[in-house]
Amino acid sequence: MSDDFENAPGPETGIELDMFRDADGRISPLWLERLRAFLEGGRAEDVALVMEPLHNSDVGDVLEQLDAAERVALVRSLGDLFDFSALTEVDESIRLEIMQALPNAEIARGVAELDNDDAVYLLEDLEQEDRDEILSALPTFERLALKRSLDFPEDSAGRRMQTEFIAIPPFWTVGQVIDYLRTEKDLPDEFYQLYVVDAAYKVLGTLPLDKFLRSARAIKIDTIMNTNFVLIDAEQDQEEAARSFERYDLVEVGVVDESGRLVGVLTIDDIVDVIQEEAEEDIRFMAGVGDEDVSDTTVDTVRSRVPWLVINLFTAVAVSFVIGLFDATIEQMVALAVLMPIVASMGGNAGAQTMTVTVRALAMRELDGGRLRRLIRREMVVGLANGVIFAILIGIVTGLRYGDVQLGIVIGLAMVINMIVAGTFGILIPLTLDKLKADPAIASAVFVTTITDVVGFFAFLGIAGLWFGLF
Amino acid sequence: MSDDFENAPGPETGIELDMFRDADGRISPLWLERLRAFLEGGRAEDVALVMEPLHNSDVGDVLEQLDAAERVALVRSLGDLFDFSALTEVDESIRLEIMQALPNAEIARGVAELDNDDAVYLLEDLEQEDRDEILSALPTFERLALKRSLDFPEDSAGRRMQTEFIAIPPFWTVGQVIDYLRTEKDLPDEFYQLYVVDAAYKVLGTLPLDKFLRSARAIKIDTIMNTNFVLIDAEQDQEEAARSFERYDLVEVGVVDESGRLVGVLTIDDIVDVIQEEAEEDIRFMAGVGDEDVSDTTVDTVRSRVPWLVINLFTAVAVSFVIGLFDATIEQMVALAVLMPIVASMGGNAGAQTMTVTVRALAMRELDGGRLRRLIRREMVVGLANGVIFAILIGIVTGLRYGDVQLGIVIGLAMVINMIVAGTFGILIPLTLDKLKADPAIASAVFVTTITDVVGFFAFLGIAGLWFGLF
Repeated sequence: MSDDFENAPGPETGIELDMFRDADGRISPLWLERLRAFLEGGRAEDVALVMEPLHNSDVGDVLEQLDAAERVALVRSLGDLFDFSALTEVDESIRLEIMQALPNAEIARGVAELDNDDAVYLLEDLEQEDRDEILSALPTFERLALKRSLDFPEDSAGRRMQTEFIAIPPFWTVGQVIDYLRTEKDLPDEFYQLYVVDAAYKVLGTLPLDKFLRSARAIKIDTIMNTNFVLIDAEQDQEEAARSFERYDLVEVGVVDESGRLVGVLTIDDIVDVIQEEAEEDIRFMAGVGDEDVSDTTVDTVRSRVPWLVINLFTAVAVSFVIGLFDATIEQMVALAVLMPIVASMGGNAGAQTMTVTVRALAMRELDGGRLRRLIRREMVVGLANGVIFAILIGIVTGLRYGDVQLGIVIGLAMVINMIVAGTFGILIPLTLDKLKADPAIASAVFVTTITDVVGFFAFLGIAGLWFGLF
Repeated sequence: MSDDFENAPGPETGIELDMFRDADGRISPLWLERLRAFLEGGRAEDVALVMEPLHNSDVGDVLEQLDAAERVALVRSLGDLFDFSALTEVDESIRLEIMQALPNAEIARGVAELDNDDAVYLLEDLEQEDRDEILSALPTFERLALKRSLDFPEDSAGRRMQTEFIAIPPFWTVGQVIDYLRTEKDLPDEFYQLYVVDAAYKVLGTLPLDKFLRSARAIKIDTIMNTNFVLIDAEQDQEEAARSFERYDLVEVGVVDESGRLVGVLTIDDIVDVIQEEAEEDIRFMAGVGDEDVSDTTVDTVRSRVPWLVINLFTAVAVSFVIGLFDATIEQMVALAVLMPIVASMGGNAGAQTMTVTVRALAMRELDGGRLRRLIRREMVVGLANGVIFAILIGIVTGLRYGDVQLGIVIGLAMVINMIVAGTFGILIPLTLDKLKADPAIASAVFVTTITDVVGFFAFLGIAGLWFGLF
């Protein structure tokens, strides 16, 4: 990705920035109107003029603001001036839509200009047929490098890696490396460390640029290189790789294939996106939203949400059957129907609290040994404590509302039971799903809510039936 | 933070790594048992021996695994060997607990060794009194730098920044800078770019190390520096700063005070933590969990969760009053009590889906102008579509279950209404909270659930009452 910030608040470009983004950092409506007018009027030169100063992430923002037809018009109007790396900055649905509207030959020309990791990012979601056509239009060297990256599993380090890096032999001196960097034209756009490798490209050491810069010309590389370094397996999942970046505060790390040969590097900017996506995924899954973007179409959105709602319909109907067991009881004492959602709702909320803490702790790998036992113990006690607190509160409220102390006691008892159940299952369900290698973020909420609903209604209606002799 | 990875899978250290972490990457129970035995036996030398190869984030993991007393024993046993930066890697509650157990003089000695940003991180949560005592025990230069950082608002870029950086004049040559870097002993631990400044420390340009390294010795700095660069205001919130890092794929950025003077730098490793925390916060807030860690005590946990449950109790009681309006209706037709939670539950889930998408889009600043209008329109249509789909499904199920077509029609109508309401308020409530400068992640869920419950029960019981003439 580009290392220029051409619309940043530098001395020369302050004016463009002010015009492009308003005070809240949003794209100025006036700016956008002007662009739209240029596009509509087919004024390609003016379009190029206003787009030229933008960073590719700003170009991505502009694309997301436009309508489908305008997006394609913008890309075509810019022609060769359009940097395809801007497409890595937009939502997947918009990316696919733009790429499907463009001829494959044009995409191939754009992709050829990209860094390997950005090119893979654009190609991996395309249909096999389009992908092959684009690949076959690329120069041999680029084609082979891309094919190799695409052979690694989806979401692996090998897919995300950049295949350009600087490898040097251990016997060079600092001076030789500096001379090499000054004369070699085909260097990566950005790099933060050098890789010291043997003839088979096995990594012997790494050398961060800042450490390298502090050393005199005569010094041999193998005397200053780090020999304790982290390497990442190309097959490893990108989330595991992100974990290493976070744990060891990495900025760049070497990626090796199964024979230990250095095949690429991962840089922090890619990993920031992975971290972001991963947290997003947990948030969405817990709320029963699939792999969905703000810019998805209505049909895609419905398609992504209906399955979750169908599951919820099943569980809601099941819960309603539990209530149905007590219809004779409710008929004799209609206050039970009025009060029963309170017990279920409180249990559902308490369960969601415990579940959320557990799901995130699992995602962050915070639950080993001692910490897990402590968390289970804590959540049980918290459930009991909250149960007692809210049993007393709701007991008093209900007693006063209906002038019936016994009804207050019954709802209080049901509340204690449901809060303990909520705490217990709020932790056990995500743990069990994790043990079964399922993603706890996806399914925990359904199970926890169903259990707290069933237990809430069953406990309240059951205790009431026994207490008041309604069976 | 350290740039060594001493327990990483390098050729020399493979054995230590295998022993410290098991195959799943968790700290090996055997390793931990041994450490515990050493701590109990007061064998300080053996403790030092097993701890010495660990990276400070691993030391943080070890501390989190131990009990409260063992943690302090470990820190005291290590004495001068304990690197206080490990405390930046543990949960806040554990950090405070350890620091409260240590004499302030010992903390001052440890803090003096730290980078400025890590030191601020440790000191900012302490009581004013302890903080002042520790500061007064530090050398003048460190004390002033820390005080200055601590004067910036909480969660600002100024709090997170590192005050050590490399500033060079524009008229130097590449050769002069290299010589300076080779001879100057007091350089930052890690750096990724150089700052070209005037006499008043106003930034004239930046120079990434990789670009710098490609230039010959005789070249003047001001001919190769980037003049389009991003700077961050020290008063700016760290989340806004994180946004800039994400948008422009930054690794390091200069931080300036109100007079435009360069006072520090932010690096990506700090920002990764900010991004992580921010997503965590949204997840927790949406589930009604406060600012809470896995290692918080039971009492702290109860204290953090009770307020949310109290709010839920209020809304649940309010919802129950709505049901209470219809108790005569329910008495005449008990099937309504059995079915009503289905309508409310489906609305609650659909509302949570829309709300989650909206809250995250707001957090990621994805909702300006065109995108916002499209999202609102989409969510209305999705609500309507889901309403129709699930009205038909639940209508059929209910009609069959009770052998009553009319009851099926009534619940279907209530479902359509509640799903549209869920979509509408799922988006309007977070947007309104955002406009009112409240955090939509915190309060949206309560409002959305309450509305879908009220509308769900009211629509279903009301329509049923009218349809069957039960009023």
